[in-house]
Amino acid sequence: MSDPRLSQRSASMRPSALREMLSSGDPPRLSLAGGLPPAEAFPFEALAGIAAELLGGHDVRSLQYTSAEGDPVLRAQVAALVSTVHRREVPPGRVVITTGSQQGIDLVGRVLLDPGDIAIVEDPTYVGALRALVPTGARIVGIACDGEGMRTEQLEAHLAAGMRPKLAYLCANFSNPSGATLSAARRVHLAELSSRYGFVVVEDDQYGRLRFRGQHLDPIASLADDVVYLSGFSKVVAPGLRVGYLVAPQWLVRPIVLAKQAADLAASSLGQRMVSRLLDRPDWWDEHLAALRDIYATRADALCAAIDDRLVGRLRVRPPEGGMFVWAEIVDPAVTATALIAASRARGLALVPGSEFSTTNTYDHALRLSYSTLTPAQLAEAVGLMADAFDSLTSSSR
Amino acid sequence: MSDPRLSQRSASMRPSALREMLSSGDPPRLSLAGGLPPAEAFPFEALAGIAAELLGGHDVRSLQYTSAEGDPVLRAQVAALVSTVHRREVPPGRVVITTGSQQGIDLVGRVLLDPGDIAIVEDPTYVGALRALVPTGARIVGIACDGEGMRTEQLEAHLAAGMRPKLAYLCANFSNPSGATLSAARRVHLAELSSRYGFVVVEDDQYGRLRFRGQHLDPIASLADDVVYLSGFSKVVAPGLRVGYLVAPQWLVRPIVLAKQAADLAASSLGQRMVSRLLDRPDWWDEHLAALRDIYATRADALCAAIDDRLVGRLRVRPPEGGMFVWAEIVDPAVTATALIAASRARGLALVPGSEFSTTNTYDHALRLSYSTLTPAQLAEAVGLMADAFDSLTSSSR
Repeated sequence: MSDPRLSQRSASMRPSALREMLSSGDPPRLSLAGGLPPAEAFPFEALAGIAAELLGGHDVRSLQYTSAEGDPVLRAQVAALVSTVHRREVPPGRVVITTGSQQGIDLVGRVLLDPGDIAIVEDPTYVGALRALVPTGARIVGIACDGEGMRTEQLEAHLAAGMRPKLAYLCANFSNPSGATLSAARRVHLAELSSRYGFVVVEDDQYGRLRFRGQHLDPIASLADDVVYLSGFSKVVAPGLRVGYLVAPQWLVRPIVLAKQAADLAASSLGQRMVSRLLDRPDWWDEHLAALRDIYATRADALCAAIDDRLVGRLRVRPPEGGMFVWAEIVDPAVTATALIAASRARGLALVPGSEFSTTNTYDHALRLSYSTLTPAQLAEAVGLMADAFDSLTSSSR
Repeated sequence: MSDPRLSQRSASMRPSALREMLSSGDPPRLSLAGGLPPAEAFPFEALAGIAAELLGGHDVRSLQYTSAEGDPVLRAQVAALVSTVHRREVPPGRVVITTGSQQGIDLVGRVLLDPGDIAIVEDPTYVGALRALVPTGARIVGIACDGEGMRTEQLEAHLAAGMRPKLAYLCANFSNPSGATLSAARRVHLAELSSRYGFVVVEDDQYGRLRFRGQHLDPIASLADDVVYLSGFSKVVAPGLRVGYLVAPQWLVRPIVLAKQAADLAASSLGQRMVSRLLDRPDWWDEHLAALRDIYATRADALCAAIDDRLVGRLRVRPPEGGMFVWAEIVDPAVTATALIAASRARGLALVPGSEFSTTNTYDHALRLSYSTLTPAQLAEAVGLMADAFDSLTSSSR
């Protein structure tokens, strides 16, 4: 029962199963559950040097309030960066710096969604998007995904039948949680649907620059006009700075900036200035991103190889092309994700169920595996614990 | 006309007159309009040393995600600090670290207010509170203020007549914008009304530690249980770190934390860790707060003395006991704030109208004057420009 003193919005905020699980009992020895970037790749030295420059140099802009849109120098730098990724000119006036990219989703929900409106998401989808969008009172409609991402022909069927969503949220590159990448043909299709039916595509691209395999695909933001493109520096610098950004169509910039003012006035000035100084160093980025891609690729391969070795026929995964997640399906219908998670937890391994990311609480035979924070040896050990957990479940059911 | 593609919430977000004014035309030479803390008091050296320690020492907690509630060490430190201010034990579990204190207002609005609910504010009130609360769809009811803050007997009359607000938001110490401090008797009265009628008091206390005159008064949070106490480090360290906090009654903590997760996952880890290291140094605080109070007192006195000298009989002000604002009333009914602001702007001085802070767009003969960022000499010059502006208006009306 919800507390009657609380708002309806509050009553719709569901706690995270992941969070509850991680906060109860002894901390697990190993975890494939989280979504943290690897701390060994944090650029401590570069940031220490920049902090010394800024604070030692009494840089007032690092400590004073900045405008809700963000530091003007950083906005221009982000516009230049995004122009390269999108292969189309993005003016700085369309860039808004956010307090991490999570805030981008929240702001878009605030300015676009009223109760009863429809918001399209991938199913499964990023749980933080559900947390931000559900409390708007909008109806969340999940569209099934496969190895090529959101099945846009299913979305088209809904649209043809009269559904009129205000927005469609998705991670086109190495989706959280599915790891899948939207194919080039579906990107074109989704862009075309957005124009034809007049909804905003919210394209969450945290990992696009961490592609370690396959070809770069144009973002949907390159193909359609009404796209809010979300990204940031949590995955490529460090999340603790809380510096994200969004690029919005011109008509949405001002409403988003007003919502941002109401939400928290502005993002951290110090974080913004630090990132801005990093962006002054193109050579540093080349080396840093190459090192990051190498870490992620090595770990993704180690996890998939260990699963091939120890869990073949039991767990089905698709090797990702970037990002930090693999979607894993349990082959045996008699073994549920809940049972596997409990048995793994008893062996010191934390896992997160696929149902956590569903709009409909399905996926009771799926898991999201994150390989980003474990070494190849730890990943092999984690898979070994899962194999033991499988053994215990199959033997006890006989 | 509002864009039909936008949400109703978005349509209710009003732009800031102040912001529009400051962003148009040449920047003014002098400004009494803003609300920035004085940059010359930013603790650059202390923060530079701490940044070198944390980043040079590869402190992972400074750059990794932290929990939505905030860094556990900082929460415990804030609990100890607030326990002293409130003169009652505040457990760390009731503290939530926010992305600046503006976010505290936004989160409370999210978890308490549904469309049609009633939210009480001071009239005039902090414009950021209106920005956060209006889009919830709640009806905002302003209660008139005098030199002792909110006239709680007027609130009681509403309550006795059947009004049932969900919350009452106010700045009890040196209110933004009125500069007034809620009297001890009214604090007790408001606490009693909160218990009797079952509404949450949202007590915004950004300036309580910057009292430079008069006696400390117990916060309402010392006198009632259902109080969300909002404060932070923007005014006593630096706003660019975006580290605020709130202390909520236990039943509100979890809903607020869920809303915080949806809003931006967590506040800046680096900012939190930097503030935490500062809180390890009680001697530093004593000296730093004394220096801050001295700056504010000197500037408040300089502004009030200049007004006494040049604008007596034209502008009525009440010397504040802390904070950074003075509410100024134009004595001559023939001179409107709009006219005075235009005439001052033509002379290179920015002013902000009292109507900006009203729930009803009244106060067309009032201004909020901020003295925090100008030196005594600049304050005297600004008042001189206002005197010239008054002269031009009175001569032209003859």
